[in-house]
Amino acid sequence: MIGKRVWGSMILLVGMLGLLAAVRPSYADQAPPAPTPDPAGTATGSGQDLVGVVPGTIRAEDFERAKAHEPFAVQLADLVNQNRLAINFIWTLITGYLVMFMQAGFALVETGFTRAKNAAHTMAMNFIIYVLGMTGYFATGFALQFGGIGLIGVPNLGGLKVLDGEFTVHIAGMDWGLFGTKGFFLRDAYDVAVAVLFLFQMVFMDTAATIPTGAMAERFKWTAFCIYGLFVGAFLYPIYGNWAWGGGWLSQLSRLGLGAGYIDFAGSGVVHAIGGWTALAGAMVLGPRLGKYNRDGTPNPIPGHNLVMALLGVFILAFGWFGFNPGSTLGASGNGNLRIGLVAVATMLASASGALSAMLYTWATTGKPDPAMAANGMLAGLVAITAPSGYVSPMNAFLIGAIAGVLVCLSVAFFERVVRVDDPVGAISVHGTCGAFGQLAVGLFADGTANYGGLTVRGLFYGDAGQLVAQGIGMAVAFLWAFGVSWVFFKILDALVGLRVSPEVELQGLDFPELGVFAYPDGRLVPIPGAARLPVIPPAPAEATAG
Amino acid sequence: MIGKRVWGSMILLVGMLGLLAAVRPSYADQAPPAPTPDPAGTATGSGQDLVGVVPGTIRAEDFERAKAHEPFAVQLADLVNQNRLAINFIWTLITGYLVMFMQAGFALVETGFTRAKNAAHTMAMNFIIYVLGMTGYFATGFALQFGGIGLIGVPNLGGLKVLDGEFTVHIAGMDWGLFGTKGFFLRDAYDVAVAVLFLFQMVFMDTAATIPTGAMAERFKWTAFCIYGLFVGAFLYPIYGNWAWGGGWLSQLSRLGLGAGYIDFAGSGVVHAIGGWTALAGAMVLGPRLGKYNRDGTPNPIPGHNLVMALLGVFILAFGWFGFNPGSTLGASGNGNLRIGLVAVATMLASASGALSAMLYTWATTGKPDPAMAANGMLAGLVAITAPSGYVSPMNAFLIGAIAGVLVCLSVAFFERVVRVDDPVGAISVHGTCGAFGQLAVGLFADGTANYGGLTVRGLFYGDAGQLVAQGIGMAVAFLWAFGVSWVFFKILDALVGLRVSPEVELQGLDFPELGVFAYPDGRLVPIPGAARLPVIPPAPAEATAG
Amino acid sequence: MIGKRVWGSMILLVGMLGLLAAVRPSYADQAPPAPTPDPAGTATGSGQDLVGVVPGTIRAEDFERAKAHEPFAVQLADLVNQNRLAINFIWTLITGYLVMFMQAGFALVETGFTRAKNAAHTMAMNFIIYVLGMTGYFATGFALQFGGIGLIGVPNLGGLKVLDGEFTVHIAGMDWGLFGTKGFFLRDAYDVAVAVLFLFQMVFMDTAATIPTGAMAERFKWTAFCIYGLFVGAFLYPIYGNWAWGGGWLSQLSRLGLGAGYIDFAGSGVVHAIGGWTALAGAMVLGPRLGKYNRDGTPNPIPGHNLVMALLGVFILAFGWFGFNPGSTLGASGNGNLRIGLVAVATMLASASGALSAMLYTWATTGKPDPAMAANGMLAGLVAITAPSGYVSPMNAFLIGAIAGVLVCLSVAFFERVVRVDDPVGAISVHGTCGAFGQLAVGLFADGTANYGGLTVRGLFYGDAGQLVAQGIGMAVAFLWAFGVSWVFFKILDALVGLRVSPEVELQGLDFPELGVFAYPDGRLVPIPGAARLPVIPPAPAEATAG
Repeated sequence: MIGKRVWGSMILLVGMLGLLAAVRPSYADQAPPAPTPDPAGTATGSGQDLVGVVPGTIRAEDFERAKAHEPFAVQLADLVNQNRLAINFIWTLITGYLVMFMQAGFALVETGFTRAKNAAHTMAMNFIIYVLGMTGYFATGFALQFGGIGLIGVPNLGGLKVLDGEFTVHIAGMDWGLFGTKGFFLRDAYDVAVAVLFLFQMVFMDTAATIPTGAMAERFKWTAFCIYGLFVGAFLYPIYGNWAWGGGWLSQLSRLGLGAGYIDFAGSGVVHAIGGWTALAGAMVLGPRLGKYNRDGTPNPIPGHNLVMALLGVFILAFGWFGFNPGSTLGASGNGNLRIGLVAVATMLASASGALSAMLYTWATTGKPDPAMAANGMLAGLVAITAPSGYVSPMNAFLIGAIAGVLVCLSVAFFERVVRVDDPVGAISVHGTCGAFGQLAVGLFADGTANYGGLTVRGLFYGDAGQLVAQGIGMAVAFLWAFGVSWVFFKILDALVGLRVSPEVELQGLDFPELGVFAYPDGRLVPIPGAARLPVIPPAPAEATAG
Repeated sequence: MIGKRVWGSMILLVGMLGLLAAVRPSYADQAPPAPTPDPAGTATGSGQDLVGVVPGTIRAEDFERAKAHEPFAVQLADLVNQNRLAINFIWTLITGYLVMFMQAGFALVETGFTRAKNAAHTMAMNFIIYVLGMTGYFATGFALQFGGIGLIGVPNLGGLKVLDGEFTVHIAGMDWGLFGTKGFFLRDAYDVAVAVLFLFQMVFMDTAATIPTGAMAERFKWTAFCIYGLFVGAFLYPIYGNWAWGGGWLSQLSRLGLGAGYIDFAGSGVVHAIGGWTALAGAMVLGPRLGKYNRDGTPNPIPGHNLVMALLGVFILAFGWFGFNPGSTLGASGNGNLRIGLVAVATMLASASGALSAMLYTWATTGKPDPAMAANGMLAGLVAITAPSGYVSPMNAFLIGAIAGVLVCLSVAFFERVVRVDDPVGAISVHGTCGAFGQLAVGLFADGTANYGGLTVRGLFYGDAGQLVAQGIGMAVAFLWAFGVSWVFFKILDALVGLRVSPEVELQGLDFPELGVFAYPDGRLVPIPGAARLPVIPPAPAEATAG
Repeated sequence: MIGKRVWGSMILLVGMLGLLAAVRPSYADQAPPAPTPDPAGTATGSGQDLVGVVPGTIRAEDFERAKAHEPFAVQLADLVNQNRLAINFIWTLITGYLVMFMQAGFALVETGFTRAKNAAHTMAMNFIIYVLGMTGYFATGFALQFGGIGLIGVPNLGGLKVLDGEFTVHIAGMDWGLFGTKGFFLRDAYDVAVAVLFLFQMVFMDTAATIPTGAMAERFKWTAFCIYGLFVGAFLYPIYGNWAWGGGWLSQLSRLGLGAGYIDFAGSGVVHAIGGWTALAGAMVLGPRLGKYNRDGTPNPIPGHNLVMALLGVFILAFGWFGFNPGSTLGASGNGNLRIGLVAVATMLASASGALSAMLYTWATTGKPDPAMAANGMLAGLVAITAPSGYVSPMNAFLIGAIAGVLVCLSVAFFERVVRVDDPVGAISVHGTCGAFGQLAVGLFADGTANYGGLTVRGLFYGDAGQLVAQGIGMAVAFLWAFGVSWVFFKILDALVGLRVSPEVELQGLDFPELGVFAYPDGRLVPIPGAARLPVIPPAPAEATAG
């Protein structure tokens, strides 16, 4: 019975995505003749693109003059630019790969911090979210986020001009971007540069998408989870992503005199706060796990089943974050991109200071230097430095991480004891709270030294209060969008297919009832009812003991 | 007694390798004076190599003219080319590293999908295959595969001209390559560019070599495994590799009007089908595990011991595949290599659609969305996209992966129930079946948009039926070579040293009898006979419970 | 009570670091006006830096002449150099990331090779050492190591001229470097190139710092460990690092006619021997684990709890080593850096031959091919090739690894049975013994073919006995410094806060008493006293069995 509803819902969603894709041409009709994509990469960029890439070198008029007297050097410039594009492609792709690998880190953190009886389910959610989120993002998400003004990344990757279909509204005499309309299924964007951008942005979306699986673990029904996975990749994440990164209205706030507009270097807001506030909505609609709260409302700790696994996951995340933040330049050569070294160092230092302050805080308050809280402290530092990493000094990066390390401890206690939301892995505090702090931190600590193709950013401590206002707006909008829309979505989903497994399934563990497997079949000490799929092997004494 | 046979066999094999290496000079004598290797990398390539790298820029005659009027720009071209080489070196090395890391992924997938009592043995096979395969490949394999025509990679890496000793046969008025004869132990190829090629190709060989360890797990005798490891790296893999990639006859089929000759961008055939069909031969010669089949021939499922481990392995494989496919350009700058972005996106999308279609198929047919089959579906999509990834659109990549996801489910059932081969991890279906499908997919879906240094490829759906014929020949030859030669090899090995452990060892688990260790010593609940190597620690109550 | 001492010690250490930072200006006063850091990266390097980068191309006089006749080409040279810097930044950063990921490998090796009851503690040490070591290195370590002569890396990364404060002593008519004085907290070195160097060197320090945690596992008190972590990063490692790599006296030995001075390409000595000899001192001061030695002095083996985990860790280490060694060029374009391919191949081959020889040696001597010893053999080969990897042929690399694989087996037996030091994971032998061998191997096998910006190195077998003397001095100094200073440090630490946990804690396992957590809470079969933090969940039959 439930099966039919599930299939119906999935067909409905896929149908909606298809409809959206089909509707696309109506926007395209209004546009001028589209630029030509370059799937071979043999016509992407030319020597002319070198103009302005490094301050004080070749200007457009130098090019004109050289055509007459230095024709060979002008030809050579094409190859210099080819090298520049290749460098930027390599950087963006490899850092994107590292971000993709973070999915393994999330999987291990969440599975390690939950119980053995739900290990297959938690791991599988982290596996399949990559699959479903990507499918949704491929279908509509990327187009909604980046199919707008085709300027993002052009200076570094070339050729993204095919993405030129931002849908805008006209308010107060200005056009404000809402979402993009090119690139559904990448069909009108079969281009080497678009591909690089797609890969990098896909794994960012995936990071946001996987955060709620931690907060909603150990009770989230598989069918509901699958629909959620498509939804977050296809719609929820990309819209805010367009506002901040795709040429949308938040990035345009500089027109109102608010600093450089909302600035989010690598996504404390776009990725982590969106993921964290969605996690909050999901965990609230789901309700706490059985046994989490006593009758008087006091919480019981429910330790995970494998701390080694969780800490390995944190290592992988800290490793992947060296792609997440430094890769967000979308390039390494020119346009101030040599700053990647400082971005990486800021990331590294904030991870250390976050873990350190969380460990010392826990040690001081509980008497034990809980490594699980130190691990969350490292993630908190990483989340907080994500937005400001491109604009702050090493010393300030260390400071931002240290603040986040304490903040996450306070936030975990707040959500567990005051709000009474059950978040098995602390995802809401790590990504929501510290993501919001990271959004603000840009408006406080950005020191104006970075210069990405002319863009400089200064926070309050370095003279620009307007930047802090822009950051505050971005922070508030992230909360309202992610919490609001996802709360409504989860409520509808609950009504349609049910969001939560039955209490019997929850007590037994979700692995077999939901997925038909066990995480650790050899580890079971007693038979589990209904486990008919287990092997029927001729009994042998040695077999029974050694297995 | 067995020990002597083992040592004898190993000495025999090493002796054969040495002989082969010693024979080499006879070929070298026929060759013209060999090009000079460049171990310092200070004389590899020059500005002249930029000619033709990007269509429409510098031609050879421009260089000649510029020498008179723009001497500085001509000098500068040397440095532009140095940058280009460095870019291509970085790309090939780092993507090669990612492929090397896939060995860890294979280890976890295979160990997770097998039983705890064989965990050390399965893990150790995946560890030592890297060691033995590399040794064989260093001794003779690389020379046999790439010591032929020294053109592979020259446009991107420079300096490979030292590899110029292809052994050919003259048929129908043409020379057809069979194997190479330069580069044994890299002694006559001490060169920076050769080193980059060696590293990248070594890890590809390793991938093929480790595939059979999954199909042959839980019963493969260690001594036989060691000899197999040398054999696959030294001989089995490199020969077909030469035919397809080293300038051998399969790559020359274009002379007969068959498209661009057999095309295998990253090795659906060369790596995966070869590994998969070798696995089929090995598993058939070994026979099924005890308890796998009932008297009536029906199979029993034998679940692995750690699904979390297996899924982590799949993550690592999907991560490493971003090296496997995009790295197969052997470069990023020039020669159409900016296509790497589209290669990566094709890889990513096929991984998602493979997992998605396998999950939906399993869900529809068994009522449960088995994550283990979804994991195999992701691997199936990755294997299938490997050959066509360089030539197809994102949409077609998604489609290829989706087909592979269903295909692997059908193939697993076919081999388990019809052929009755016991393959604990599904390696035959993932790598053999889907590898063969990937070989064909080039001949169907290649759309002619890619242009690597002038090479374009079109499949049947884009107008060239001859390409499909070439792919079919490559597919058939891969099966005949890998299955045929390895079947004979395993039969001989079985007669010489025995391929399979005794039933007692198999029931007890292979870890202690074969290797003298346990995977999880603390996890044993009862003593195991013969475990004399275990610690004798003064008993203490707390010790006994906490350990 | 102990708590107060701990806090006192930590405050003391932090205070000392602060004092050292405060003292810094007194040196700075003596220096000429400092070069300007470039945090935006828009003024780092120019086309002029291309002079000498590739032998036989642009000379300084060519530049002068070209300014008149080829002004566009001269401008273009700036962009060629920008590409070169970006290439070198990418290479150094990504290889640095791989080295950082090795921390996860060490964590898994050490945790897998120790017992389940200490798994959280061992894992947490490997996690927190990254945090504490980095904090110490950020505060003073980097400045002491590299704040000296600002030449390291300048040819490849540009802009490191801000690091120009080496403190020297005047002996025998020459200035000999002792330590650097610029870059405390990176405050006077807010520069893109310094950042890249800092990141790469930080992860190298971290590797050295984490080695002793393996030898000291299962009994090292957390508070003492924390102080150790700061100490090694802030002082112990950087001083020898300055002598070898930061322009200090060991690197200046060429003045005395000793080859090219002490040469250590990637740190067999600087990183591994320093870590290994520190581990030796630590394990000696700590004493053996309870139950390790019988009354007659014979040792008992104490197997670790998870061999799969340990082997996964070795894979990760072998993967990360492809960053460790090849990345130590600090660049890929020009200055002979194309050699990176050969460095990577040397690394790869030595890892294989080390594992192979260790496996064969163990098989021959014990009758079983113990994969744990093969794993240590791979690490031994990697450690030994680290120093010579930049200067030797593939064949010699294979040989060096093979020697190290046997050496580590002999060394493990020597330290366990003769010296009677209890080293749970073999860290002393892998990193100390094989690190020392690697230091010597440069003086034996370096063949003079490499040419990094004009630097060539020849060992005894290729004609330069002086190089071997320099290597011997470097080896002896590494032992004296690391063992001597750390022995005194551990003795003082033992007296101040106690180095070792109580016997009760050791028997129970360190996880709960020291950290308040369990590694595997679900895996405990009986209650552990004092585990009050465990969840109080309403009992349910299904719950009890499935969890």
